[in-house]
Amino acid sequence: MSAPSMTLHYNPASPFARKVLVLLHETGQAERVLLKTTIVSPISPDTELNEDNPAGKLPALRLADGNVLHDSRVILDYLDHLHAGSPLVPREGSARWRRLTLASLADALLDAALLIRYETAVRPADKQWDQWLDGQQEKIERSLSYFEQEAVTELSTGFDIASIGVACALGYLDFRQPDLNWRNSYPRLANWYADVSQRTSMQKSRPPV
Amino acid sequence: MSAPSMTLHYNPASPFARKVLVLLHETGQAERVLLKTTIVSPISPDTELNEDNPAGKLPALRLADGNVLHDSRVILDYLDHLHAGSPLVPREGSARWRRLTLASLADALLDAALLIRYETAVRPADKQWDQWLDGQQEKIERSLSYFEQEAVTELSTGFDIASIGVACALGYLDFRQPDLNWRNSYPRLANWYADVSQRTSMQKSRPPV
Repeated sequence: MSAPSMTLHYNPASPFARKVLVLLHETGQAERVLLKTTIVSPISPDTELNEDNPAGKLPALRLADGNVLHDSRVILDYLDHLHAGSPLVPREGSARWRRLTLASLADALLDAALLIRYETAVRPADKQWDQWLDGQQEKIERSLSYFEQEAVTELSTGFDIASIGVACALGYLDFRQPDLNWRNSYPRLANWYADVSQRTSMQKSRPPV
Repeated sequence: MSAPSMTLHYNPASPFARKVLVLLHETGQAERVLLKTTIVSPISPDTELNEDNPAGKLPALRLADGNVLHDSRVILDYLDHLHAGSPLVPREGSARWRRLTLASLADALLDAALLIRYETAVRPADKQWDQWLDGQQEKIERSLSYFEQEAVTELSTGFDIASIGVACALGYLDFRQPDLNWRNSYPRLANWYADVSQRTSMQKSRPPV
């Protein structure tokens, strides 16, 4: 086994970094990547991360030649071209854009959940704004409702870019919004998640307790 | 000329929607898409948009068969597969992930600029937080500095996914942060933008005054 040739700026609490870890495990590439833990938020940047990604965000992937790729979608697309198995991002046809749209909705859910996290855990209490929190939480609920009613059968057809995105989004809700009890409202999605969360890739990338 | 077969949820002030318009013009497809103007923010959702994109964000593209694609990156990828000219998203090789990384950085700049816009124009004054505004503005400055020092020569090689992203990001700064005077600090980027902003695609997609 050769030494890791790539370095991933990541944090075990980052759901966008988790998508990368899951794809690495699903495609047998976990040992190609060295994990470099970075703690960062929009108000506490990390100098070394900023040098590799001026946006100051996780994840970022430094390649052996020194080039750096970001954000998570670009990294996922790149890593999906490096393995010999079936692509996890369909290369063409209507499946490509359907699966990418589902993955995009999972990312939008995560963006809303992260904005809620920053509002409640980073911003001073007297500057928090309920209307903003409500608007972001409604994005999450509408997305969950869509996955439940329109997409759960499709998600069950394979653990690909769409399924990875939705699974990591649900895992992040469990991590940061444990009182949401989303399973009560979205039982089919809960069943699907109970199944996929047993995968080795999901187990090996679980956020901290 | 056949009637438009697709409908784009858009707003002339949305920089993410502008990317789609620019690609449509660059690839000779503008007349395939009907534009549907939607006014939306995280705290004032639009019911009809929510039905097509549960995240409640612009742009979203409804296809002739009723399927809807989002977000802007997915739409750009789709539309780039519909024309016969040279792809604006390189299909493979290192150019693909380099150009997508530059496009991703432009999107990150826009995300920061939009969060600043929401903070200053939507959130009540007594709940605005300077440290948040500073952190987002620093993301913008670092990204501009990177484009100036590391990427402007590459951007000049062709008006593709990366160039469209950076051009729309700079146009949005002119629109929402006219006092930033970014041209003073980033003269090579300013020269590049002066050139590309003359393109028909950029002229026809300019935000409102």
